[in-house]
Amino acid sequence: MLEKEISPAVIKRLPRYYRYLGELLENHVDRISSQGLSERMQVTASQIRQDLNNFGGFGQQGYGYNVENLYKEIGKILGLDQVNPFIIIGAGNLGQALANYQDFEKSGFQVVGIFDVNPRLVGLTVRGVEVRIIDELEDFIKEHNIKIAALTLPKMMAPQMAQDLVSWGIEAFWNFAPVDLQLPKEVVVENMHLAESLMTLSYNRTHKV
Amino acid sequence: MLEKEISPAVIKRLPRYYRYLGELLENHVDRISSQGLSERMQVTASQIRQDLNNFGGFGQQGYGYNVENLYKEIGKILGLDQVNPFIIIGAGNLGQALANYQDFEKSGFQVVGIFDVNPRLVGLTVRGVEVRIIDELEDFIKEHNIKIAALTLPKMMAPQMAQDLVSWGIEAFWNFAPVDLQLPKEVVVENMHLAESLMTLSYNRTHKV
Repeated sequence: MLEKEISPAVIKRLPRYYRYLGELLENHVDRISSQGLSERMQVTASQIRQDLNNFGGFGQQGYGYNVENLYKEIGKILGLDQVNPFIIIGAGNLGQALANYQDFEKSGFQVVGIFDVNPRLVGLTVRGVEVRIIDELEDFIKEHNIKIAALTLPKMMAPQMAQDLVSWGIEAFWNFAPVDLQLPKEVVVENMHLAESLMTLSYNRTHKV
Repeated sequence: MLEKEISPAVIKRLPRYYRYLGELLENHVDRISSQGLSERMQVTASQIRQDLNNFGGFGQQGYGYNVENLYKEIGKILGLDQVNPFIIIGAGNLGQALANYQDFEKSGFQVVGIFDVNPRLVGLTVRGVEVRIIDELEDFIKEHNIKIAALTLPKMMAPQMAQDLVSWGIEAFWNFAPVDLQLPKEVVVENMHLAESLMTLSYNRTHKV
């Protein structure tokens, strides 16, 4: 497969295809037509065919798509065919919510450590993972070769923490702190700015036609 | 001001401008040049000038932007010049994290109710707001004229709950359940699909150049 040929617009839609295909699998659906997928996803069948054509010969006239194959293939493109261990920095409500979120594991993401500055949270266990004091972070990252970190820290603490994490080996951040991290270009950052999302909601509500 | 002239691309950047201007205000900065904003935001000064020109004569040659005016004006466009009371459905970790999140209040969003199906959570107080049993939801929405709801429910429960909420008067959803809500067109939905965001992170990490 020539991954280079897949356009960014298609890439952006992949997680949603992956989610729907996962649900079909859970419901023991072996195959589905572009029309069937279209009805569920509220996307036109031709859009779906066009998108999924990027992944080779999985759709067949009169048969449709083999759900399991397509799910696996899209998972590979998304890098979900391997286990992705990650750590959570910040064991407050949001950090605990992420650690409790079972949907991630289906996608290969596994919380292997939770860290906090607050000694009172240390020893607390979330889904079998113990909260550790932040002093142990550097050793933990190096020992377990961790590459991904979720940041659920106050915005004042996040920038310095992110820089430390990069120096200890972290290559990708899932950032919930309401601040833009200034990091080397090769570091991947996916921002989840909650307040900005709520503002977008507010804008759309205020200006809806 | 002719709001119709503002392009969707500019709209999308507004929450970020609003956040940076809010930080300047907090730091008692009265005015800033497009160059100064550019250095902070990592956006070109010409892009900033072009974007902010949409909001009339706030920038002046040799003076820069009046931070407070611009902050207020963008806030108005975003619908933040009024108090936006909202409720949270689901009082688990994520619901509690949202209720605890102080940044929302600065933007006019105020959590006025938290609801859960679990009687054991009822009576718990998060930042002064008591968790109520879900049976009280309909009366509460009607009595307090609530229009915005955050959904932090399991995906099995979210679709039916969303439909009920619409019938009781909710017009806008901040949806954290990993499911696409099928609602009337006039209802505004802002999705926060956590797992999909993590997949995007994974893709960008796997395919980075």
